[in-house]
Amino acid sequence: MAIKPIGQRVLLKRVDTETVSAGGIVLVDSAQEKPQEALVIALGTGGKNEDGSAFEFSVSVNDKVLISKYGGTDVKVDGDEHLIVTESDILGIIN
Amino acid sequence: MAIKPIGQRVLLKRVDTETVSAGGIVLVDSAQEKPQEALVIALGTGGKNEDGSAFEFSVSVNDKVLISKYGGTDVKVDGDEHLIVTESDILGIIN
Amino acid sequence: MAIKPIGQRVLLKRVDTETVSAGGIVLVDSAQEKPQEALVIALGTGGKNEDGSAFEFSVSVNDKVLISKYGGTDVKVDGDEHLIVTESDILGIIN
Amino acid sequence: MAIKPIGQRVLLKRVDTETVSAGGIVLVDSAQEKPQEALVIALGTGGKNEDGSAFEFSVSVNDKVLISKYGGTDVKVDGDEHLIVTESDILGIIN
Amino acid sequence: MAIKPIGQRVLLKRVDTETVSAGGIVLVDSAQEKPQEALVIALGTGGKNEDGSAFEFSVSVNDKVLISKYGGTDVKVDGDEHLIVTESDILGIIN
Amino acid sequence: MAIKPIGQRVLLKRVDTETVSAGGIVLVDSAQEKPQEALVIALGTGGKNEDGSAFEFSVSVNDKVLISKYGGTDVKVDGDEHLIVTESDILGIIN
Amino acid sequence: MAIKPIGQRVLLKRVDTETVSAGGIVLVDSAQEKPQEALVIALGTGGKNEDGSAFEFSVSVNDKVLISKYGGTDVKVDGDEHLIVTESDILGIIN
Repeated sequence: MAIKPIGQRVLLKRVDTETVSAGGIVLVDSAQEKPQEALVIALGTGGKNEDGSAFEFSVSVNDKVLISKYGGTDVKVDGDEHLIVTESDILGIIN
Repeated sequence: MAIKPIGQRVLLKRVDTETVSAGGIVLVDSAQEKPQEALVIALGTGGKNEDGSAFEFSVSVNDKVLISKYGGTDVKVDGDEHLIVTESDILGIIN
Repeated sequence: MAIKPIGQRVLLKRVDTETVSAGGIVLVDSAQEKPQEALVIALGTGGKNEDGSAFEFSVSVNDKVLISKYGGTDVKVDGDEHLIVTESDILGIIN
Repeated sequence: MAIKPIGQRVLLKRVDTETVSAGGIVLVDSAQEKPQEALVIALGTGGKNEDGSAFEFSVSVNDKVLISKYGGTDVKVDGDEHLIVTESDILGIIN
Repeated sequence: MAIKPIGQRVLLKRVDTETVSAGGIVLVDSAQEKPQEALVIALGTGGKNEDGSAFEFSVSVNDKVLISKYGGTDVKVDGDEHLIVTESDILGIIN
Repeated sequence: MAIKPIGQRVLLKRVDTETVSAGGIVLVDSAQEKPQEALVIALGTGGKNEDGSAFEFSVSVNDKVLISKYGGTDVKVDGDEHLIVTESDILGIIN
Repeated sequence: MAIKPIGQRVLLKRVDTETVSAGGIVLVDSAQEKPQEALVIALGTGGKNEDGSAFEFSVSVNDKVLISKYGGTDVKVDGDEHLIVTESDILGIIN
């Protein structure tokens, strides 16, 4: 199953940033409120800008991006949690 | 009876996603708050973009789409529950 | 007495959807919260789109339309209850 | 004293709709919440549409119009109560 | 000291409308909530309309205008109370 | 240290308007809620109008202007209190 | 790791303004509510203005800018606190 987002939306998959504690235990910091990393899985259909020209995405599939923790809509694709956000809600691309 | 939505609206029919419990009983998860699947039944009259050009839908009749659980207006067509939403409220097309 | 709505408004007359109970008694479901059917009585003066072109209505006089139960302004024309709504508040045309 | 409204406003004078009771007493229904009739006394200076063209009024002086009971600003002209409303707040013209 | 308003603002001076009581005492009705009369003292710098053309004022210096009682900013010019309002907040010109 | 405001902002320095009491004591009326005078110290980078043309300021450096008491952002430049406001928040120029 | 902001955003790094107390102890005034200084680390992808032309930034990398204390999104880049803000939220450039 694949999802093609509508308009200027993109489909993302969160990248969990793990934390290794002193004793080697991997801690997933589910309480953090900082922006989170995500991978771009699919770009939307795009549509038009206000001036009538075609909208062009600033991100590409496979880009690692920074998103605000709260925002977008969680969707399950083949049992995997994904996230659909409007591109303008992506803060930046991580190189 | 058929309904032709006005403007950029589309007529949808929800696709209930069933869950089979361990004992084989089909459970319809009416309490879930995740986006839901729906089938596109009819496209609206479209109208114009802000730049005066004709609006083009990104979805087609028979597309399976992902919608937010809360949104749109429920309408009964020939006794069947349907849903009228603005196309921009559709999150994505499911392939 | 006739009313010519101003701008993109249309004048409607609600179509009461009757329910026949088991014993044959006609029940008017005044408590229902579903969209309602109405008949288009008159189109407005139209005016202009934002791009300066003339606004064209998507509905025609005598169309049966679906409207949200709450919305528009009730007006009495020759003692008959009517409703003035903006065309964009009409959900769809019923065929 | 005369008033020339600014922009897309119009100057109106309410037409009291009287009710004659069974015994012939004229009742003015001051409590009604239905739209009210008014007479167009003067059109505003008009100004421009968003596309730069001159705004044209859809109503004319002496038109009988339907207005929402609450809306506009009451003004006293030569001791007579009048009402200044934006033309888009007029629901329709009564023929 | 003179003030040149910025943009589509105008500088006004309220005209107190006096009331003469039965015994000849002049009453200034400070509690009235009706629109008030004011004199146009100075027009603003104007600026541009949204379509890029120069904004033209509909009022002129020395026009007597009708304004809503609450609105605009009171300013003291040479010890005299004045009022700065956006021209679109002026209801009409009194002839 | 100097500050170049971004966009349509301007950098101002408040002009305290002093009051001399009967006994000659200078009173600074810190409680007044009337608009205040300020001097234009620097204009912003300007940018574009909505129609794509370059924005032109209506005020110039050294103009004495009238501003609403509450509004803008206080900034300290070389230990001196200044104020950054959007030009459209300036009420008028004092001659 | 580097971050390329999306659209009209810029990546900033706060410049802590230290205070030296009488006894020479450096005090970081974490409670101040005044605008703060920051260094421009990276400009966004820009995108388009409403009129279809390319957006041009008014700030450049390495500019020292003044920002409101509350605003933007904190992001950690290589363990260092940074801030992503929309350029229009930058008050001015400090020379």
